[in-house]
Amino acid sequence: MIAPIRPLAVAMGDPAGIGPEIVAKAWRSRDLHSLAPFFAVGDPRAIEAVWDGPVARISDPGATAAAFADALPVLTVADAGTIVPGQPDVEGARCALDSMEFATGLTRSAAAGALVTGPVSKSQLYQIGFTHPGQTEFIAERCGISKENAVMMLAGPTLRVVPVTTHIPLAAVCDALSIELIVAKARVTARSLTRNFGIESPRLAFAGLNPHAGESGAIGREEIEIVEPAIRQLRAEGIDAVGPFAADTMFHPRARALYDVAICLYHDQALVPLKTLHFDEGVNMTLGLPIVRTSPDHGTAFGIAGQDQAEPGAMIAAIRMAAQAAERRALADAEMAAGAA
Amino acid sequence: MIAPIRPLAVAMGDPAGIGPEIVAKAWRSRDLHSLAPFFAVGDPRAIEAVWDGPVARISDPGATAAAFADALPVLTVADAGTIVPGQPDVEGARCALDSMEFATGLTRSAAAGALVTGPVSKSQLYQIGFTHPGQTEFIAERCGISKENAVMMLAGPTLRVVPVTTHIPLAAVCDALSIELIVAKARVTARSLTRNFGIESPRLAFAGLNPHAGESGAIGREEIEIVEPAIRQLRAEGIDAVGPFAADTMFHPRARALYDVAICLYHDQALVPLKTLHFDEGVNMTLGLPIVRTSPDHGTAFGIAGQDQAEPGAMIAAIRMAAQAAERRALADAEMAAGAA
Repeated sequence: MIAPIRPLAVAMGDPAGIGPEIVAKAWRSRDLHSLAPFFAVGDPRAIEAVWDGPVARISDPGATAAAFADALPVLTVADAGTIVPGQPDVEGARCALDSMEFATGLTRSAAAGALVTGPVSKSQLYQIGFTHPGQTEFIAERCGISKENAVMMLAGPTLRVVPVTTHIPLAAVCDALSIELIVAKARVTARSLTRNFGIESPRLAFAGLNPHAGESGAIGREEIEIVEPAIRQLRAEGIDAVGPFAADTMFHPRARALYDVAICLYHDQALVPLKTLHFDEGVNMTLGLPIVRTSPDHGTAFGIAGQDQAEPGAMIAAIRMAAQAAERRALADAEMAAGAA
Repeated sequence: MIAPIRPLAVAMGDPAGIGPEIVAKAWRSRDLHSLAPFFAVGDPRAIEAVWDGPVARISDPGATAAAFADALPVLTVADAGTIVPGQPDVEGARCALDSMEFATGLTRSAAAGALVTGPVSKSQLYQIGFTHPGQTEFIAERCGISKENAVMMLAGPTLRVVPVTTHIPLAAVCDALSIELIVAKARVTARSLTRNFGIESPRLAFAGLNPHAGESGAIGREEIEIVEPAIRQLRAEGIDAVGPFAADTMFHPRARALYDVAICLYHDQALVPLKTLHFDEGVNMTLGLPIVRTSPDHGTAFGIAGQDQAEPGAMIAAIRMAAQAAERRALADAEMAAGAA
């Protein structure tokens, strides 16, 4: 028997977005979804602006357990200035960044069991000097991991996908792909599926780049020159890698049953099937970090902020996935320690 | 009241593939699915090799109506040589090509009401000197339509998609796109949705090319330089064109409810969501032809041919869609004639 995991740190995201609302709604359904105790990180006034439920202002993550049953624990780290739902500003962006950074630090130092981050606005963050492509790269850096070794995985109830390249123009994808990049991303993915999800020998299915996976070279040669060699190398390392497959044949129910994760070569190849199937429940998990980190796979939705319209499904899924991964890691670490003793 | 449409011509496709089996299975379920009378075109022995139901050899499409209730009418146009399901050869490829060509001609001459084509093997066809990229281009040519003006649309019960570019390498997509190409494909699509589906003012939703539709130019400029001008031009022509949208947000149920067709910029952007949702019931319809032409959106499946495993769902859907489109066209033509009289 191992001790329960520490409470999860949930950074609220932009205070003018739907982050505060979905964190509050997730807390409200804590019993229904058997959510592990968590505390929000940010300005409690952002929650109070959109929700009249009970809030417990805490100053230490350790106070979460006692408070969680009766109120949403909130650790104040920043003053977001004037908060108007739907109207983002630079003070809010600073609050969002401070909250993310502090929540990351708490998880790094093991004061929190896992990190969940709410939606931020990149265009707002850029106005205050943020230079990373996104939260993932920022958190990786704060964890001492190079961005090449941090892998973005999107997961829904019936599909996990990893895009090998992410936020680059489609015209840049072919040049960005290499055997080394695919192998590196796949290695992190395979190891993390074991560590975070308890899958002993994860099955990785690779998408081709071109229509019909290139038809043996007739419609492009990247499959032959890049993807197939990467798969061979991974198989030689003992990783269960198969493909490349025509992307359009990989995501129907019978196909999905045959693998644990689809390794896709560009953003939309991964995100289109994931969001087609699981738009309201997609979770973004960063693999390859020393901590567990998840995020709901949607944006700030400023247009509906403060109107009680935001669906908390993806936030709830992100909290559940983070807690389960943290528990699995704790269990594995305990077994390793027991074996070493 | 208008006269019923003429029987549909269903080219069987490669005799060694699953074409003959799914045509026979479609006929078997003619009452369940209220299928309009159709006749198969090809070598009747290909059907007899995989099916022991009743076959009526006919020599004129006009014989279909009398035969259809009791037997699958088959118009013999070629001798496929030795037929072994699952083992394609050049004689079979010649039979498939002859069948397709003859069925096209019958539809062109109005002896048949619409054309449905079964799956062929392009690699087999290439061995007998076929030089078109696929059936669509061949049929367009036989109809006197340039391949630029023939538009491939894929349709399932809850989604229609048109890929602006099709079977080219992903690396060639950006250069292949132009305002003119998008406008031309969209015009044909809008007109055909009215003509074939009776949608008076079709709503066309356009996908962006890059992740997040380029984020206002931060991740690629094709949206700004190509897609948006095309949409503006189409709107100026009175076509209900909207977008470009981030492709990954376009295909969940609430998004799909807002348009009649998604105009996508490359093969997998269109085919991944379509086949993720409707793998067993996707129909390929060629727009812009003087005839109605559909096809089940799957291949020859040589690996399961002759094993009674082939699902006829997509063929049934292709026959139904062709018949409905032919009926709508006949009705519109009759109204136009009445108006002119």
